Amino acid sequence: MAVFPAPQSRPTGVSRYLPVLHWGRQYTKDTLVSDLVAAVIVTIMLIPQSLAYAMLAGLPPEMGLYASVLPLVAYALFGTSRALAVGPVAVVSLMTASAVGAITAAGSADYVTAAITLAILSGLFLVVLGVFRVGFIANFLSHPVISGFITASGVIIAASQLKHILGIKAGGENLYLLATSIFTHLGETNLLTLAIGVGATVFLFWVRKGLKPLLTGMGIRPRLADLLAKAGPIGAVAVTSLLAWGFDLGQAGVKLVGAVPQSLPPLGLPSFSLDLIAQLAGPAVLISIIGFVESVSVAETLAAKRRQRIDPDQELIGLGAANIAAGLSGGYPVTGGFARSVVNFDAGAETPAAGAFTAIGIALATLLLTPFLAYLPQATLAATIIVAVLSLVDFSILGRAWRYSKADFAAVAATILVTLGFGVELGVSTGVALSLLIHLYKTSRPHMAVVGQVPGTEHFRNVLRHKVVTDDAILAVRVDESLYFANARYLEETLCAMAAERPAVRHVVLIGTAINEIDFSALESLEAINDRLKARGVTLSLSEIKGPVMDRLKHTALLEHLTGKVFLSHFQAVEALGGRLEPRSRPVAA
Amino acid sequence: MAVFPAPQSRPTGVSRYLPVLHWGRQYTKDTLVSDLVAAVIVTIMLIPQSLAYAMLAGLPPEMGLYASVLPLVAYALFGTSRALAVGPVAVVSLMTASAVGAITAAGSADYVTAAITLAILSGLFLVVLGVFRVGFIANFLSHPVISGFITASGVIIAASQLKHILGIKAGGENLYLLATSIFTHLGETNLLTLAIGVGATVFLFWVRKGLKPLLTGMGIRPRLADLLAKAGPIGAVAVTSLLAWGFDLGQAGVKLVGAVPQSLPPLGLPSFSLDLIAQLAGPAVLISIIGFVESVSVAETLAAKRRQRIDPDQELIGLGAANIAAGLSGGYPVTGGFARSVVNFDAGAETPAAGAFTAIGIALATLLLTPFLAYLPQATLAATIIVAVLSLVDFSILGRAWRYSKADFAAVAATILVTLGFGVELGVSTGVALSLLIHLYKTSRPHMAVVGQVPGTEHFRNVLRHKVVTDDAILAVRVDESLYFANARYLEETLCAMAAERPAVRHVVLIGTAINEIDFSALESLEAINDRLKARGVTLSLSEIKGPVMDRLKHTALLEHLTGKVFLSHFQAVEALGGRLEPRSRPVAA
Repeated sequence: MAVFPAPQSRPTGVSRYLPVLHWGRQYTKDTLVSDLVAAVIVTIMLIPQSLAYAMLAGLPPEMGLYASVLPLVAYALFGTSRALAVGPVAVVSLMTASAVGAITAAGSADYVTAAITLAILSGLFLVVLGVFRVGFIANFLSHPVISGFITASGVIIAASQLKHILGIKAGGENLYLLATSIFTHLGETNLLTLAIGVGATVFLFWVRKGLKPLLTGMGIRPRLADLLAKAGPIGAVAVTSLLAWGFDLGQAGVKLVGAVPQSLPPLGLPSFSLDLIAQLAGPAVLISIIGFVESVSVAETLAAKRRQRIDPDQELIGLGAANIAAGLSGGYPVTGGFARSVVNFDAGAETPAAGAFTAIGIALATLLLTPFLAYLPQATLAATIIVAVLSLVDFSILGRAWRYSKADFAAVAATILVTLGFGVELGVSTGVALSLLIHLYKTSRPHMAVVGQVPGTEHFRNVLRHKVVTDDAILAVRVDESLYFANARYLEETLCAMAAERPAVRHVVLIGTAINEIDFSALESLEAINDRLKARGVTLSLSEIKGPVMDRLKHTALLEHLTGKVFLSHFQAVEALGGRLEPRSRPVAA
Repeated sequence: MAVFPAPQSRPTGVSRYLPVLHWGRQYTKDTLVSDLVAAVIVTIMLIPQSLAYAMLAGLPPEMGLYASVLPLVAYALFGTSRALAVGPVAVVSLMTASAVGAITAAGSADYVTAAITLAILSGLFLVVLGVFRVGFIANFLSHPVISGFITASGVIIAASQLKHILGIKAGGENLYLLATSIFTHLGETNLLTLAIGVGATVFLFWVRKGLKPLLTGMGIRPRLADLLAKAGPIGAVAVTSLLAWGFDLGQAGVKLVGAVPQSLPPLGLPSFSLDLIAQLAGPAVLISIIGFVESVSVAETLAAKRRQRIDPDQELIGLGAANIAAGLSGGYPVTGGFARSVVNFDAGAETPAAGAFTAIGIALATLLLTPFLAYLPQATLAATIIVAVLSLVDFSILGRAWRYSKADFAAVAATILVTLGFGVELGVSTGVALSLLIHLYKTSRPHMAVVGQVPGTEHFRNVLRHKVVTDDAILAVRVDESLYFANARYLEETLCAMAAERPAVRHVVLIGTAINEIDFSALESLEAINDRLKARGVTLSLSEIKGPVMDRLKHTALLEHLTGKVFLSHFQAVEALGGRLEPRSRPVAA
């Protein structure tokens, strides 16, 4: 059995906010080599992805490249994950298209400005969350909701790319509109485009599934084979670009990427308008939180494998800085991507410097490779996107949630259906709202068990589940939930009704073993219960109240006016209230 | 000590939805007399209040009377409280003014139509909640938020009536706008109006505080004295109307109520528009929920005194029916009023029939008394409102919440400040949102205690609070919270970090005594924890998992892949994992 090495030391002071100061000091030549190798591999993977996701977002291809330069440097300075690769990702690109598309038409200058503004707003929001350490609000997104949302987004993204594979014009921000639009324009399909699109898709699926076994069969080491397989998309880009150039496919109606400016990312603030900011604030919040949740789960999964530590609040600052950098350099919202982070990790990235080196790689590409991109068919990019997002689609979450809990299933199903039917923003909002409602509903009617004594012991158990003895004069109730505003009224109603239904009861004892908190609403309800029972000559006592809960109750009017007492153990309570504690021959079953 | 009579039988079948079938069968002559007496007294109290609250809502005075006829009959048929007196109330009238005023100007025909539409929408919403038995959503409103909201509304209402006391034109939907508007127009004060307004206010305060002692001093029975004091407002109405008529005060610039149509409530549907419905849907939901929460608390307080039972879901239907009736008979949103329900109860109302008799009283008033109302000064109505709402204002909730919990204080304070500063709708929404956020925040970082054995016992306690013994190879953690999406990620991070910080640990045991639920997000986190610990050669076990939680876990992948076991008691867990259980000389303190 493995014995742990000493845990990694935790950064403090300035290096908490600038983790580079922490890992930078321990940087060696070996680390440099590892990071450089990883950077080369991620760069090769990132070039086609950046172009493709920019297209998905409805933006010019160079914006995808710009979003893969400075943001990576910013994350390298401020982020805490050693393997996370940030940049444009599929779901955030779709959300950008949805948010910006609601304001202005794709292709216009306003559209670009809005996307840049969205990046800066998301960045600022993330930084604010990080500085005030309120990253907990990401917890609003439950696992099932985020899984459902990503699955549904994957379907929409794949469907949205069919038009590029078919070479037709079509659009729509939900599945129904997309499908009808594609069906209407099906007759306009360009067969050459279709051939390239289908060819590229099949090739990329084969690369993903079949290339690695082939290469290892040829005697290549599995790890190298794996990395070569990741370079598949760049191969598809090169081959289809050459075909388009050689056969002049652009003239034959195949849509190509066209001229891409051959320059480094332009620096500067976009021209803001308060109006635009007001319109984009809501989507920026959603994009930030979804990007953060996706990114931090990847970062934590990878960190766990190497016993490293992620600081979620600092991650907010790292991702925030990356998005601000994207906005200041002509990019659009970015976050940590799952596939490319895994590649980065597997390729041996040891520090965030690998990300900075990747940024240099992409910067070189914007200077040197852009002339060749003019001949790249859009269908190839669409194929890249489809193959990438279909790995995100996983409807099995529906089955697993159904088997475990119908309530969780309802939240996932609603998220998927609303995302598919009404778009991403309403989809994720519905999921969050429904999860909250379900949680409130479940805790609003807590399980309340009447308990009796297990004969001959000091233990008390549910009278419905165990053979126990009870005393008709004492009603002992264990509430299996913290008492707070969502169940305060229910507690009052139910406890008073339980007492009213048992005419012989003279003492009610509330058992606090499962009560982790009593908020002010519940305190007022307890006071009301005390008064209502008192009016009928019944006392109210408490037993087994936890330390922190008792600390808070100490100086309240409730304890002052309590008609009964507070007992440390329920056994003491029953003893003091004169309950018959001996095991008797009459076990009460209900 | 009192012995309870047998509890009231519960209605079933049709009489669940139509409680009148239940209590109607037991109706006797004695009950009739009691109900009639109560009805006369409530009628006398309700006439000036109905006129005053209609004025507060910006509506013609007769709409207040209409809202006090059919809605009372509808509630008598469908409601479950035997003492609740429904009709126009202060807070709901203010919310009506705010909602309708945001759409159209007071005094217009559209304004009246909107108020009627609002009543119907609120009614339908309440009925739907009741039929689907989802009244639990009223739990979103915590005690502190509703107290803060009512207090702030009381202040705004009182301030809004100052213009009538001064005889000037002024307005504004938050305190700042109201205050500046009043200040600007202060020079236009009408001194005669001021004299009547101040005189009526002082008289009504004296009636409330001083009349009862005076009457009892004169040998009148306390209960009768109390009821006579409640008739104070009708006295003020009569005296000031006579003064206005005798001295022709209308000519001297004193604003009078003016001509009121002398007719029964008009029946009929208002002319709806989908646009209007869309604009009013949000406010209708807020008004319904606030009206319901206010009303049901009054109903429950009174029912408790007589060992009667309120069915909250049926109350939704009762209040919904009352609001639909209001909308169909030219009224505006209604709910159960606190003061008048107490009067109804004290006057001896025994069944909801008292409400129906009150409706007859008000209907007679609309036919016979309306000519006399023409001379009633608006300042008198304003005085009635001010005296009534100031009894709702109770800032002590701030102090009590502060002493008990800073989090609850924040929710109350925010509700009061936002209501005063930005109006009722934003105020109550802020309170609800903040309560939810606070609840999520509190449960998102649950208390997690490392426990050790109390020497010589089978008990395990927090190592930080007790002298206990631990085994370095076993990390036993008790989580004091249900595990759900808000804390699933935190649990994963924290538990794995705790294990990582203790190099000698080979077994982690999660103790479930305070875990009332594990949702699907938490299940996935537990699977992740199991995997992450497994990667380091550490096992994960569970102990003392509650019955309902275990039932759900049984057929999951978690239990299939769990590296450790599930133990009934934590003592068994430590024993089975080879922990040193004997008391030792080395108690671990941290």
